Amino acid sequence: MNKVKFLFGIHCHQPVGNFEHVLEDSYQKAYLPFIQTMERHPTIKFTVHYSGILYDWFLAKHPEFLDLLRKLVQRGQVEVMSAGYYEPVIPIVPDTDKIGQIKMSNQFIEENLGYTPSGMWLTERVWEPHLPQIIAQAGLQYVTVDDYHFLSAGIPADQLFGYYLTEEQGATLKVFPISKDLRYLIPFRMPEETINYLRKLSEKGDGVAAILADDGEKFGVWPGTHKWVYTDGYLEKLLTQFEQNSDWIEFVTFSQYLEEFPPVGRVYLPTASYFEMMEWSLPTASGKKLEAVVSELKQSGKFDEYSQFFKGGFFRNFLVKYPESNNLHKKMLYVSQKLEELKKKRAFAKLDPAAVKAAEINLYKGQCNCAYWHGVFGGLYLNYLRHAIYEHLIKAECALEELAGVKKEDVNLAILDFDRDGREEIIISNDKLSLGISPALGGAIFEMDYRPKAFNLLNTLARREEVYHQKLMGKGGMSIQEGVSSIHDCLTAKEAGLDKALIYDWHNRYALQDHFLAADTNLENYRMVKYREAGNFTIEPYTYKTSRSKNEVAVNLAREGKVAGAPIKVEKSIVLVATAAETAFNYAVSNQSADTVEVWFGVDFNFSMLAGSAPDRYYQIDGQNLPDRNLNSCGESDKISWVKLVDEWDGFEVLLSVDKPARLWRFPIETVSQSESGLEKNYQSSTVFPSWKIKLKPRETWKVKMTLAIKDRA
Amino acid sequence: MNKVKFLFGIHCHQPVGNFEHVLEDSYQKAYLPFIQTMERHPTIKFTVHYSGILYDWFLAKHPEFLDLLRKLVQRGQVEVMSAGYYEPVIPIVPDTDKIGQIKMSNQFIEENLGYTPSGMWLTERVWEPHLPQIIAQAGLQYVTVDDYHFLSAGIPADQLFGYYLTEEQGATLKVFPISKDLRYLIPFRMPEETINYLRKLSEKGDGVAAILADDGEKFGVWPGTHKWVYTDGYLEKLLTQFEQNSDWIEFVTFSQYLEEFPPVGRVYLPTASYFEMMEWSLPTASGKKLEAVVSELKQSGKFDEYSQFFKGGFFRNFLVKYPESNNLHKKMLYVSQKLEELKKKRAFAKLDPAAVKAAEINLYKGQCNCAYWHGVFGGLYLNYLRHAIYEHLIKAECALEELAGVKKEDVNLAILDFDRDGREEIIISNDKLSLGISPALGGAIFEMDYRPKAFNLLNTLARREEVYHQKLMGKGGMSIQEGVSSIHDCLTAKEAGLDKALIYDWHNRYALQDHFLAADTNLENYRMVKYREAGNFTIEPYTYKTSRSKNEVAVNLAREGKVAGAPIKVEKSIVLVATAAETAFNYAVSNQSADTVEVWFGVDFNFSMLAGSAPDRYYQIDGQNLPDRNLNSCGESDKISWVKLVDEWDGFEVLLSVDKPARLWRFPIETVSQSESGLEKNYQSSTVFPSWKIKLKPRETWKVKMTLAIKDRA
Repeated sequence: MNKVKFLFGIHCHQPVGNFEHVLEDSYQKAYLPFIQTMERHPTIKFTVHYSGILYDWFLAKHPEFLDLLRKLVQRGQVEVMSAGYYEPVIPIVPDTDKIGQIKMSNQFIEENLGYTPSGMWLTERVWEPHLPQIIAQAGLQYVTVDDYHFLSAGIPADQLFGYYLTEEQGATLKVFPISKDLRYLIPFRMPEETINYLRKLSEKGDGVAAILADDGEKFGVWPGTHKWVYTDGYLEKLLTQFEQNSDWIEFVTFSQYLEEFPPVGRVYLPTASYFEMMEWSLPTASGKKLEAVVSELKQSGKFDEYSQFFKGGFFRNFLVKYPESNNLHKKMLYVSQKLEELKKKRAFAKLDPAAVKAAEINLYKGQCNCAYWHGVFGGLYLNYLRHAIYEHLIKAECALEELAGVKKEDVNLAILDFDRDGREEIIISNDKLSLGISPALGGAIFEMDYRPKAFNLLNTLARREEVYHQKLMGKGGMSIQEGVSSIHDCLTAKEAGLDKALIYDWHNRYALQDHFLAADTNLENYRMVKYREAGNFTIEPYTYKTSRSKNEVAVNLAREGKVAGAPIKVEKSIVLVATAAETAFNYAVSNQSADTVEVWFGVDFNFSMLAGSAPDRYYQIDGQNLPDRNLNSCGESDKISWVKLVDEWDGFEVLLSVDKPARLWRFPIETVSQSESGLEKNYQSSTVFPSWKIKLKPRETWKVKMTLAIKDRA
Repeated sequence: MNKVKFLFGIHCHQPVGNFEHVLEDSYQKAYLPFIQTMERHPTIKFTVHYSGILYDWFLAKHPEFLDLLRKLVQRGQVEVMSAGYYEPVIPIVPDTDKIGQIKMSNQFIEENLGYTPSGMWLTERVWEPHLPQIIAQAGLQYVTVDDYHFLSAGIPADQLFGYYLTEEQGATLKVFPISKDLRYLIPFRMPEETINYLRKLSEKGDGVAAILADDGEKFGVWPGTHKWVYTDGYLEKLLTQFEQNSDWIEFVTFSQYLEEFPPVGRVYLPTASYFEMMEWSLPTASGKKLEAVVSELKQSGKFDEYSQFFKGGFFRNFLVKYPESNNLHKKMLYVSQKLEELKKKRAFAKLDPAAVKAAEINLYKGQCNCAYWHGVFGGLYLNYLRHAIYEHLIKAECALEELAGVKKEDVNLAILDFDRDGREEIIISNDKLSLGISPALGGAIFEMDYRPKAFNLLNTLARREEVYHQKLMGKGGMSIQEGVSSIHDCLTAKEAGLDKALIYDWHNRYALQDHFLAADTNLENYRMVKYREAGNFTIEPYTYKTSRSKNEVAVNLAREGKVAGAPIKVEKSIVLVATAAETAFNYAVSNQSADTVEVWFGVDFNFSMLAGSAPDRYYQIDGQNLPDRNLNSCGESDKISWVKLVDEWDGFEVLLSVDKPARLWRFPIETVSQSESGLEKNYQSSTVFPSWKIKLKPRETWKVKMTLAIKDRA
């Protein structure tokens, strides 16, 4: 009988910034019982990948797990795959960091598990054709991708039971196609179905490879799977059946297969990830179109025939689809470049290697993929994941500045195309605050780092249409369902009335965004983005000048625009003084016409305090006794001079004061996104909107000064 | 009225290796009259790209053309785009050469046309997402690709009237989408249609960009276009109409547009070329499937709606689809690497820079894209284009060896995975010959360079199925039609009976390919690949040993296989002696069974002499008076000791002698491929097949020695 070679790999990962209890739960429900079960079946060879986030956590919390792994490695049952240590999407991080992260992973595995890895788990299977050279430089010789990658290169489906060789500038890399069939069989279908599938495979010839490498979380973390896989004994039964068929099903690791078999052929793979990922990366309008086409083809029974030639978009376009993801990404490039610059300096040799290494590790942590994109998991929509990325990047940035000789009493100014949109941004900072300012986008502040806490106060996310929102619209918010069978099929709402939360922003949610409101604007229609903007300032370009002295740096922004037809000029200066945890915004609104003009002027701030309804995060407002002080509360307060956002959890408070009494609106920005357990609402930030109704005589100028001060709490 | 900004670019190129008369013809029919016409319309600004092949030729043959161009540059009418100098497909050449070729182009344009280019024509618009960094390093800031690239990233069709910014590791690049609509309008439709199209475009807003960059050969070289564009006055009329509408159609160069307008947005483009190119790069089976799907969708009227999500394959897979293209490519990498190694040597500084430069230029010429792929133009199917690539690469290789200190009296041996298929190849050489041997593929010789003439005698191409062959099959060879309206639509046969030439090889056409024939084999069924192979040697792996002394290098190959069930061993050694323009092949065929065995053994050689029916290229055969001695003649000769292939054109002859009289079959390998003027037959090589019917007693060994000698002719 023909033998089937079964290559069985699992990949386990938790995002940087995930909660401790989620890690412990995943460990107890999946990571540990999986390995314990495999331990009882020593002939079932397999391959594992754990991301560095897990390795760090195992070391700290469950070193005995590493002992267990090492034992299986030593008895030759387990191969360990490498990857970027903190699970970056490889193509979107700088080459130096690609190699650095992979080598860090190699080293950990060698030192802690006694194994020299030769292969690599490709994060989210995001492939680009120039990777072979990089991966070869990092010392690895194979990688696993989806069978879809091969299909989309035109390779027929029946030629995917082995590995291929690819090449870039002469460097070769072996590439295994992961079987979609097996991904859907294990652990979701009865063991017999897998055996039957393999039996059919065996008819193709001797030594065909059944290739599976998939998320380890499917074995215990995904809803319902712990009971199914362990309590009900699925995995035990599956492995026993494998053993009973060991005369024709032989388990080998990926690297053993490489030693035993030549490649099926050569191939070049286009940019690809799995089909769904490519769908998600499309702009929403195109995504809706593709969904319609796919559903049409599925109905006419043509989808399977056509799908090889179908593709969605391109992973990197998440950086376009979500400007907030781009901001994260460009911050990461900015910090990475600071490290590269430091390494090139002569003084580098004299620096403390441990301090450099610590900064590098923070940079690497800040490259963890999860917060950069969004598909069926929350990812980018989860504020705490984005926060964790910012936290590590800010820590790296501050450390690198210090290593580069920047002093605590310095003020700093940089002008560069930070977000790579072709226009200049300005970064000003001292040791407490770093502000990223975009003159081209309304002179807004898009990033505001409170450095002592490594906390970006503007880590917000605008409310945008998603393809799956269609299902909420017109369905009265969908039904709330219990029990989920498959993550890719399900779309249930975790709470009622989500359709009412489908509000779409017309601009990114930053700070210092200038608005002129029509007279019929109120808190409710402003919040719902159903008001009328009377001016053209919010996202329009401001001219700018910068000034800098030893103790102070200032950015002076100005725009001559229109408000309801009248020529109005807005000037605003952003001033940062050395060592102060506060910044001042000096506004001047001038009537440039010969008529008296009445305007309603307001400035939008969106503070991302990570939790809307937590008791330890709340508002305080000048002279107000708030019935609901939660950060997701809505409300209007009149004639106030200050508003405070208190974050007891992180131990600081943000005080915004104005020197002219203002009307203050506050409301939360909440998004609706899909997650593995259904559609959910997520708190993104608290909008604080002071406004003033101003009557301006001809040529008159009205001024207001705002101060934003941040203070630590005990 | 809204203004339309018209960005009008042309790209002119002729392959390395094209005939002098084709260049002169293209010059007279297109390049010159185009510029002369434009000269008369000084307000019509435009952008040109000429490949370095043309620049070299203009310098040599028509320097006055460069004077004319310079004049238009000086008066600000013309922008000049850069590119890889010898028109390589950028992603498939090494990074150093990408940058080197672009800089060579920049320099030529600066020195000869007095213009500093800022943009780049992207050869065949083969885009990969890691290019921005490379292109930025080469000093350029924009590139033109097809609108299809943007559509396939999910950008809606109505947002393609300007440029975008893309980014890689922080390096940015501006990307213009070339309008497919305009490519089909100009110069093929009446000028009014273009004006009407632009008028409609102008409704989209002020300053929308109409972007055209397309082959300059459409203006005079493509069938029928010279008369239409110049004699009938199309271009003159078009330009006049543009001038008459100059109040709303404004011609600007690409770089002027960049100065005037911000980008439409940011974007990341997946691997892409134009839609048809991606179709062509698919393996034939998938290509047929895609063609069926596309034609089904076109019939149901759904194609335009779906096409954004459709893709064919990936350009680099031409290197898989055609192993001969891969051999070219890997030879190119091999030579490029030799240059890089040389540059790293200490002695490099002492070498003659002119000699290094000359080798580098030959390498660059060997990277010209045309011979590496095949679509609607002949490309890879044209033996003289492949030959030109080999010629330049061999010249570069020999020069680099000399610079590296290799002596004329040396014999050389290298073992490496030359073709990147995961198995080792062997290269042996002296100053006259270089042989590439593939033990894994039947111990065949896949490359045989006669170095004094820089001529690869095995520059062959196997006969393979192409998607468009379907149209010949079952249609009795199609009708021969006169007059062609559009290259992409047409598919006419240039001669009758092409369907009879549709023979498909089951192995690449190399030399030293060992065959055992069934008894009913004859010249005709062998030629038609309708015979039965009785052995398993031709493409199966041989073991090998190499030996090398000061004067001689030998590769000893062996395989124990079967012939009609009987165990047979074939041993063959390939011996090369210093300074000799000849190589010996010593064969031993052994019966490993205890029975007497009768076998019919033959060795296949495929010599690519570039012309089948030219009077100056012909056969001479031992004792034979050939009625037809052309290299595309078929014939059988018995008991011969030698066969000679004479190439008076290139001035050499190839003599193959055998020390045991053989039966000799000769026949041509002719392919059927599409070209711009229809389907055509192309001579690829002359198969020379000596064979012997052998009776082998138990354990008996039969031997034959063949000698291949090459001699220059006066």
